[in-house]
Amino acid sequence: MPDTATPDSTGLPGAAAYEPTERTVPSRARQRAAYDKETVHSILDAAYLCHLGFVRDGAPVVLPTLFGRIGDRLYVHGSTGSRPLRATGAADPGLAVCLTVTHLDGLVLARSAFHHSMNYRSVVVHGTARTVTDPEERRVALDAIVDQVVPGRSKDSRPADTKELAATAVIRLDLDEVSAKIRTGGPNDEPEDLALPHWAGVIPVARSYGTPVPSDDLDPAVRLPDYLTALQGDGAGRPGSS
Amino acid sequence: MPDTATPDSTGLPGAAAYEPTERTVPSRARQRAAYDKETVHSILDAAYLCHLGFVRDGAPVVLPTLFGRIGDRLYVHGSTGSRPLRATGAADPGLAVCLTVTHLDGLVLARSAFHHSMNYRSVVVHGTARTVTDPEERRVALDAIVDQVVPGRSKDSRPADTKELAATAVIRLDLDEVSAKIRTGGPNDEPEDLALPHWAGVIPVARSYGTPVPSDDLDPAVRLPDYLTALQGDGAGRPGSS
Repeated sequence: MPDTATPDSTGLPGAAAYEPTERTVPSRARQRAAYDKETVHSILDAAYLCHLGFVRDGAPVVLPTLFGRIGDRLYVHGSTGSRPLRATGAADPGLAVCLTVTHLDGLVLARSAFHHSMNYRSVVVHGTARTVTDPEERRVALDAIVDQVVPGRSKDSRPADTKELAATAVIRLDLDEVSAKIRTGGPNDEPEDLALPHWAGVIPVARSYGTPVPSDDLDPAVRLPDYLTALQGDGAGRPGSS
Repeated sequence: MPDTATPDSTGLPGAAAYEPTERTVPSRARQRAAYDKETVHSILDAAYLCHLGFVRDGAPVVLPTLFGRIGDRLYVHGSTGSRPLRATGAADPGLAVCLTVTHLDGLVLARSAFHHSMNYRSVVVHGTARTVTDPEERRVALDAIVDQVVPGRSKDSRPADTKELAATAVIRLDLDEVSAKIRTGGPNDEPEDLALPHWAGVIPVARSYGTPVPSDDLDPAVRLPDYLTALQGDGAGRPGSS
């Protein structure tokens, strides 16, 4: 782990970044990769869902799931009966996982079919997920997962009771072997294609929020809280999609 | 494979559906699973990106990538030098993959932290990806991948030339072991929580499109085609996010 007082992988003294590894240095388009914590965390924090990959009976499985971040730790929860979480436990060596978050920012249309692409921001985390058993860590992890849905929401909801806690598995994945990848800008057409008569450019893609739909059984006296009013429209607080 | 003239897994004669397997029947919330082709295809077709999972050196890897669908086949492309695609080839047994598409449709806020959730539509495909070598199948597959970005776009761009085709690997994944999973509706709070003073309901989430940004070097005489004008705003043609 880099010491904050010594140069790290970015070459800048004191910069906080994850150390690149063989798995986190892409084989192509290396200029799109980033390892600094600020970039990695901002991409993670803007997401609602991640795609969690693991191996079962030798084959890959990729499932969408909620997650939360506290510093350099990610947390995922699930039913104690669900498949990926059954595989971890205090007595076992953990579960090798790959956790990926992707925001789609634009459709990149080139004159050539070959150069069509997407603008995106993604983070890929490799590591070993382990079941969290410490009651206090479980509690703050579950709050973080709810707060990933809407920041601050955990304080405006009923905390899990003993029965709910018993039914919930929490697994932790440390941010250690992790990278971001970002594509921005227009299409990279070949010089000889620039005069072709095809439109070329980017269609921006973003996430937007609709008008909140109260539960049928919501007491009409309960008003929409301010933290949800701010989410409406194009959601300045949480850019991107997915 | 079910014959269209005999009852299949939906119990309806003639309905076209994928056969459930041990891997595609969820361990929880089975009522959210669907196997009919219409549902599966519509979720796939509304997506721009998938998350492709495979196993490398015993560990899972999950990467976002473009894809295209033709009937019951999915296609993914990449550089012939990229890692997942290097592992497949005419002489090898193929690559075990899991391809997942997820659309986020809403944030589900419950009175209890435990019942917070997401409304979503997802498709998970298990199978073996194989390199496509037939030139005609490669050509139509690459068109399908471009048309997944914008329907019809492959006809309004320069087709790949010999050099580009040589640099492009195309892999195929047959839709066979596949399921959809859909959550809709409001939070499922416990009866004893209904009177709590926390707002409960759904924040709809959708994908929206910004004003197209032409390339700096686009000939001003090239006008925005009609098929892109239709994408602006909330994109009626392609609901959901991801």
